[in-house]
Amino acid sequence: MKCMLEDLDRLMGQHGLEAIVVHGESTFHNPEFYFVTRAHLARGGVYLKKRGESPILIVNGVDLGSARRGVVERVYTYGERGFDKIMSSHGVDGLPIVFSKLLRGEGVSGRIGFYGMVEANLNMYIVDKLRKMGYAVDSAYSPVLKEAMATKSEREVEALTRVGRRCEEVVEHLYSLLQRCTVTRGKVMFQGNPVTVGLLKTSVNSFFAEKGLVPDEGYILSTGVKSSDPHYTGGEEDLIKAGKPILLDVYPRGPGNLYFDVTRTFVVGKASRRVKDMYNAVVEAFKASMDIIREDLEAAEAMNTACDVFERRGYRTLRSHPNPENGFIHSLGHGVGWSLSDKPTLSLFSRDRLRTGNVVTVEPGLYDRKVGGVRLEDVIAVRGKGILKLSGLDVPFEV
Amino acid sequence: MKCMLEDLDRLMGQHGLEAIVVHGESTFHNPEFYFVTRAHLARGGVYLKKRGESPILIVNGVDLGSARRGVVERVYTYGERGFDKIMSSHGVDGLPIVFSKLLRGEGVSGRIGFYGMVEANLNMYIVDKLRKMGYAVDSAYSPVLKEAMATKSEREVEALTRVGRRCEEVVEHLYSLLQRCTVTRGKVMFQGNPVTVGLLKTSVNSFFAEKGLVPDEGYILSTGVKSSDPHYTGGEEDLIKAGKPILLDVYPRGPGNLYFDVTRTFVVGKASRRVKDMYNAVVEAFKASMDIIREDLEAAEAMNTACDVFERRGYRTLRSHPNPENGFIHSLGHGVGWSLSDKPTLSLFSRDRLRTGNVVTVEPGLYDRKVGGVRLEDVIAVRGKGILKLSGLDVPFEV
Repeated sequence: MKCMLEDLDRLMGQHGLEAIVVHGESTFHNPEFYFVTRAHLARGGVYLKKRGESPILIVNGVDLGSARRGVVERVYTYGERGFDKIMSSHGVDGLPIVFSKLLRGEGVSGRIGFYGMVEANLNMYIVDKLRKMGYAVDSAYSPVLKEAMATKSEREVEALTRVGRRCEEVVEHLYSLLQRCTVTRGKVMFQGNPVTVGLLKTSVNSFFAEKGLVPDEGYILSTGVKSSDPHYTGGEEDLIKAGKPILLDVYPRGPGNLYFDVTRTFVVGKASRRVKDMYNAVVEAFKASMDIIREDLEAAEAMNTACDVFERRGYRTLRSHPNPENGFIHSLGHGVGWSLSDKPTLSLFSRDRLRTGNVVTVEPGLYDRKVGGVRLEDVIAVRGKGILKLSGLDVPFEV
Repeated sequence: MKCMLEDLDRLMGQHGLEAIVVHGESTFHNPEFYFVTRAHLARGGVYLKKRGESPILIVNGVDLGSARRGVVERVYTYGERGFDKIMSSHGVDGLPIVFSKLLRGEGVSGRIGFYGMVEANLNMYIVDKLRKMGYAVDSAYSPVLKEAMATKSEREVEALTRVGRRCEEVVEHLYSLLQRCTVTRGKVMFQGNPVTVGLLKTSVNSFFAEKGLVPDEGYILSTGVKSSDPHYTGGEEDLIKAGKPILLDVYPRGPGNLYFDVTRTFVVGKASRRVKDMYNAVVEAFKASMDIIREDLEAAEAMNTACDVFERRGYRTLRSHPNPENGFIHSLGHGVGWSLSDKPTLSLFSRDRLRTGNVVTVEPGLYDRKVGGVRLEDVIAVRGKGILKLSGLDVPFEV
């Protein structure tokens, strides 16, 4: 963990911060708080780190055991520090007092950055009170932790690859389910019954559980024209029909609290010419954008490469049209690992520059309201002049 | 939905707010943002509501379909409002401009409350910029949305009860697994093999999936002395032994994006005298605190009632000792539904007063580092002079 701490100090220096505070009601779904503590704190707490010094973590007594299994060595409960008494006599007004006591205890007098997924009103209330007491809480955009989290270590890349493999097994599971179906008069059937998205989801849900994956933001299993809405997650009653796209996009949390993201599109039977053309264009954009990705590339250039491919083939893109209803209507990719929105972002307007250790999705897609959606998605790590593929399942488009 | 909107206007008036903004990177794990939109927005957005007027919601184009399936009628994409161009030429600095344009567009000039689970640094950056432009962003603690969310409608209570029933089925599932075990020389065995927490969890995981429950903050299945750490979630290798407590605490998200929370403790075979005494004390505290809960009660009084029971029986509590290692070492309960930390809180220092429609857990427990933990937990709704039980599974302690 020493490596991460040293990097934090460097980033804090870059942003002119003497200290960082990371807090929240929980470390679940609070990636920055989990990143600095590596602890599952169901009742949250406060993390404080002064530049060049070791951090301190204050937690609810009930989470003390969990906190000690994390990476912070100086762990205390609110009770031990007398903070529960402050809260009892002041209620919510006690919070700024608690933060102030902590900051004073660590001798912080310079600029302080506040981080973590925190309820906006509560965080501003605490910060505004601290400012009135004379603390210099940062007003600038100083994404110290997002920057630290954007670069994954070798070990983290390996752990992510293992989560990725499980995600691929989910895709393979759906593929094998579809293989066992038959087609009767255009309807896809299983054991004499028409196949619905609900039926497939029941099986996929259990498979996630079996693999130790938690789809905590859901997952997408959409089909036919409805799959032309890229974030439509799929309706129970939606019927699977021969020749129509079936889109599976899984983005669960796996062991180590790490997120991964994989998409494949299938067609049972023969795809129509139009869908086939869309698929071929997506494959080309997929390969072309992966080919260009390397250290020092402007992230927007990867998106531009995908747009080049689609526009050359006559499809609309976010770049060619302001609000395209059809075509390539979303960004190419996003950082993934500690959350589903790590840095960098592969979008038209991204100002990120790629660095070795960045882990991003590459997910070109085409959508047509009369036909449906086709998308492919894998995760890659930037590695000097090229990339390392963390996933890359080779599975046929037509089942 | 009209009812909710009217209540928001009233609460905004009470807190002296002309407008509220709710935002975030996603509506997942952002209960306030989901509450006002009732939409699954994977790429988040900005919600703005002026008092007495209908709200407006701005989303990423990719989430437009999902946004329209929610409750806000005035939905636009960043592209439609020209905001993507601002972001493209200004990067992150474009965000305060976007918020300012939105506020001006709705004619907001008075006090504005900011809400939602938002990365603290980013939110403060936006707010501080808006303040420099002359906007009066609230500095007070004004939990308008937490207050609105603390009172559940009849329909929400019914939906929660259905999620509760599924949670009870998970508990019954574990009970039936334990029933099928045998005891050989103090070891709990299944089909000739010693039973571990990992083995039980594999089965419970699949059962969650089957029931459409997502345990997105995990769940607790702990046993023996390790269960004396109330938030220890259980280790794969932990062995189930006869006579030792087995604690199952499930708090998944169910249909309607609603959370529920149920705990039962089991012992395979005969419990020791000490564990039996703990169990009886927990049952008494459970009943006594439920008996006292009614409208207008100070929430801390429910906690005090549980402490009374435990202290009378000679156990330590958070009230009798500052940092008890053993005894009743956590709070009695918390609001549940939109999140696992809705208001009100049944803790010693809570300043909440109970109201009809509040939905809270009641979860007394006793912990002994030499023995383990015993906890019971159900969810109740406050209903005038009494309560409505949303769960209440009757299952034996000794299996």
